[in-house]
Amino acid sequence: MIEDKNQERTPLSELGEFGLIDHLTKHFKISKESTVKGIGDDAAVLDFSDKKVVVTTDMLVEQVHFDLSYMPLKHLGYKSVMVNLSDVYAMNATATQITVSIAVSNRFPLEALEELYSGIQTAAEVYGVDLVGGDTTSSTSGLIISITALGDVDTESIVYRNGAKPNDLLVVTGDLGGAYMGLQVLEREKEVFKVNPQNQPDLEPYTYIVERQLKPEARKDIVTLLKELEVKPTSMIDISDGLSSEIIHLCKQSDVGIELYENKIPLDPQVISTCEEFNIDSTTVALNGGEDYELLFTISQEDFPKIKGNPNVTVIGFVKDKSQGMHLITRAEQAIPLKAQGWNSLEN
Amino acid sequence: MIEDKNQERTPLSELGEFGLIDHLTKHFKISKESTVKGIGDDAAVLDFSDKKVVVTTDMLVEQVHFDLSYMPLKHLGYKSVMVNLSDVYAMNATATQITVSIAVSNRFPLEALEELYSGIQTAAEVYGVDLVGGDTTSSTSGLIISITALGDVDTESIVYRNGAKPNDLLVVTGDLGGAYMGLQVLEREKEVFKVNPQNQPDLEPYTYIVERQLKPEARKDIVTLLKELEVKPTSMIDISDGLSSEIIHLCKQSDVGIELYENKIPLDPQVISTCEEFNIDSTTVALNGGEDYELLFTISQEDFPKIKGNPNVTVIGFVKDKSQGMHLITRAEQAIPLKAQGWNSLEN
Repeated sequence: MIEDKNQERTPLSELGEFGLIDHLTKHFKISKESTVKGIGDDAAVLDFSDKKVVVTTDMLVEQVHFDLSYMPLKHLGYKSVMVNLSDVYAMNATATQITVSIAVSNRFPLEALEELYSGIQTAAEVYGVDLVGGDTTSSTSGLIISITALGDVDTESIVYRNGAKPNDLLVVTGDLGGAYMGLQVLEREKEVFKVNPQNQPDLEPYTYIVERQLKPEARKDIVTLLKELEVKPTSMIDISDGLSSEIIHLCKQSDVGIELYENKIPLDPQVISTCEEFNIDSTTVALNGGEDYELLFTISQEDFPKIKGNPNVTVIGFVKDKSQGMHLITRAEQAIPLKAQGWNSLEN
Repeated sequence: MIEDKNQERTPLSELGEFGLIDHLTKHFKISKESTVKGIGDDAAVLDFSDKKVVVTTDMLVEQVHFDLSYMPLKHLGYKSVMVNLSDVYAMNATATQITVSIAVSNRFPLEALEELYSGIQTAAEVYGVDLVGGDTTSSTSGLIISITALGDVDTESIVYRNGAKPNDLLVVTGDLGGAYMGLQVLEREKEVFKVNPQNQPDLEPYTYIVERQLKPEARKDIVTLLKELEVKPTSMIDISDGLSSEIIHLCKQSDVGIELYENKIPLDPQVISTCEEFNIDSTTVALNGGEDYELLFTISQEDFPKIKGNPNVTVIGFVKDKSQGMHLITRAEQAIPLKAQGWNSLEN
C-alpha cells in the first residue's frame, strides 16, 4: 500500500553500530536547559535543579503494536514518542528528554531507519524534548522500538492516579474511539489490497480517524491549559488501553467508585458514521478501543466553573463511594458494571 | 544443556499484561531515598535534589546478545542490569533506579520470566538500585530486554570521555578477555552437546571465565575506591566492546593520542591457558573481546602515587599528543596502530 518499492537500499552493516547512531542522530538538536550532556558518552547528564523527575518507558513491537504495511515508518517514529510523552503529561509534568533504542533486522535498509528517525525528530521538535541516548542493535526478526521519556515537575503539581475523591467530576479530553476505528479502516484496506494490489484506497471519508491511528498527539496542551485555568486534577491517567480500563485503574488506586454516563462520552461524527458502517457499537469502541492518548482526570466540583464550556474537555461522570461500584449509566438509564476489556498485547 | 525440560509452564496469557507486571515485580523493594514513586502510575517520580542525573539505556536481543541454550535466564536478568549499571559507573556516578521492558514470545512460560526477574532482583539488591518502571509485551519471536538506568552524581565528580590530556596515565580495572574466552568455551560445549546430548560438560577448568561471561559484575566498587583515594579520572569509559575500541573512543573524544603497552595488559591465568588451548592470541582477545565491563580511565600523573600498588587497577599506557597517533607497543617494542575491531552486533 504505502511502501515504496523503489527506494534506495543501503545495508546497515556499511555504517557499523557507532556510525549508524551518529548518522541517525546528527540532525537532532539539544534545546532543554536540563540537558547538560546528550548523546556521545556512556550516559547522558541531566540537571533538574529542584524539580522532581518523572520517568516512563514503553516498547513497541512489529506485528504486535504496529503493521508496517499501512504504518509509514515516519509516522511510527512520531507515534512511538507520543506513546511515551502521553505518560509524562498524565503526571501533569513537562516532557524534557527521551532515549530511543531500536532492534532491527537486516531487511531494513538505512533509508528505512532514516524515515523512522525523521518521525522521532519531528516529534522531539514539536514537543520540545531532547534525544539524549539510545542503543541500536540487530534483531532476528522485525523492528522493536523501546523509548524512555523523562520529564520534570514541581512537587506541588504532580498528579497521581490515586487522588480521586467521592463527588469529584470525571473529565476526559478530546474524543474517543477514533484510533481504534482508524485501525479497522486500515485493516480492511489491507485485505482489499491483498486481493487487488491495483486498487487505490479512498481514505478521504476517514481522514480524521486514520490520522488518530497513524499520528496521534499527546496532550501537552492540556497540561498547559490546566495550569492556565489553575485547575489541579485530583487524579489523572492517559488513555492508552481504552476508557473503561483506565477508569478502573483510577478507581482502584483511588479506592473509589464511579458513574460514567454513556450519553456524555465524546465521539467524533466520523467515529459514529464509521461505527455504523462497520456495524459496531460506538460506546463499546470508546470504552475498549484504546490508543487515543487522551487524558482522563478527576477534578473537585469547585473547579467545575473553570473548565465549564471549554471545548477541550468533557465531564463524563461522577466519582462515587467505593461501595457503589463502577458503572456505566446507559442512555436507557441502566447501570452496567464497567469491565476492563482493553487491548491486551499478551493475549494476541 | 542447562535448560530444565520438566519445569512448570504457566501460559503468560493467564495473567494478562497488568497481572504479569504485578506478579513479576511484587517482590521488589524500594530502597533509594530518591525514589518518590515507583511502579504503579503513568510514570515513576524521582527526587535528585541538587544532584545531576545520568541516564543510559541498552537493549539485549536473543540470538544476537545471548543464547539461552547456555545462558540461564536468572543470569541473563542479572547481566542485563550489569550492562546498564556499568555505563552509570563509567560517569563516576551512583546508580539509583532502573526501568525494565521486555518483549517475549509465548514460547516462554511465566516460570521463565520469574527466573529472569529473580536475576534482575538480585542485581537490584546487590547494587542498591530500585526498579521503578517498565513494560511487558509480546514478541513474534524470542526475548528482547531493554533497560534504562538512572544515577546521580555531584556536578564536580562527573567524568566524561573527553577529558584525557597528554602525559596522563591510561588505567584499567580488573583483567581483560575473560568474558570472550568464556563465550568460546560455552560455544564449544554447545556444539559437543548437539552431537552427544548425554555428554556432561566439565567446565571446572573454566570457572572464572565462564562466570565472566554469564555473570559479569559492574565496577561499582571502583567508583567508591576512586572517591576514597581522592582520585578523579580525567576521562572514563566502560569496556563493553573491547579495550581497543574503547581506547579509540577516549582518544577521539579527548583529541589525544595513546601508547598502550602489550606487556601491561592484565590477563587472568585462566584466560592465558584457554587462549593457548584455543590457539588464539591473548592480546587480540583482550583488545577486541568485549563484554568485560571493566572501567578504563585516565588519570593525571600526580595521582599515580594514590593508585600505585592497588590490586584493582593497572596502568597500561600513556596519553600522547594527538599527532603521535594511537598505538599498541608490543612486547617486541613494535608500534602497531590500534584498530576498533570490537564486537559489532550489526555485522552479525
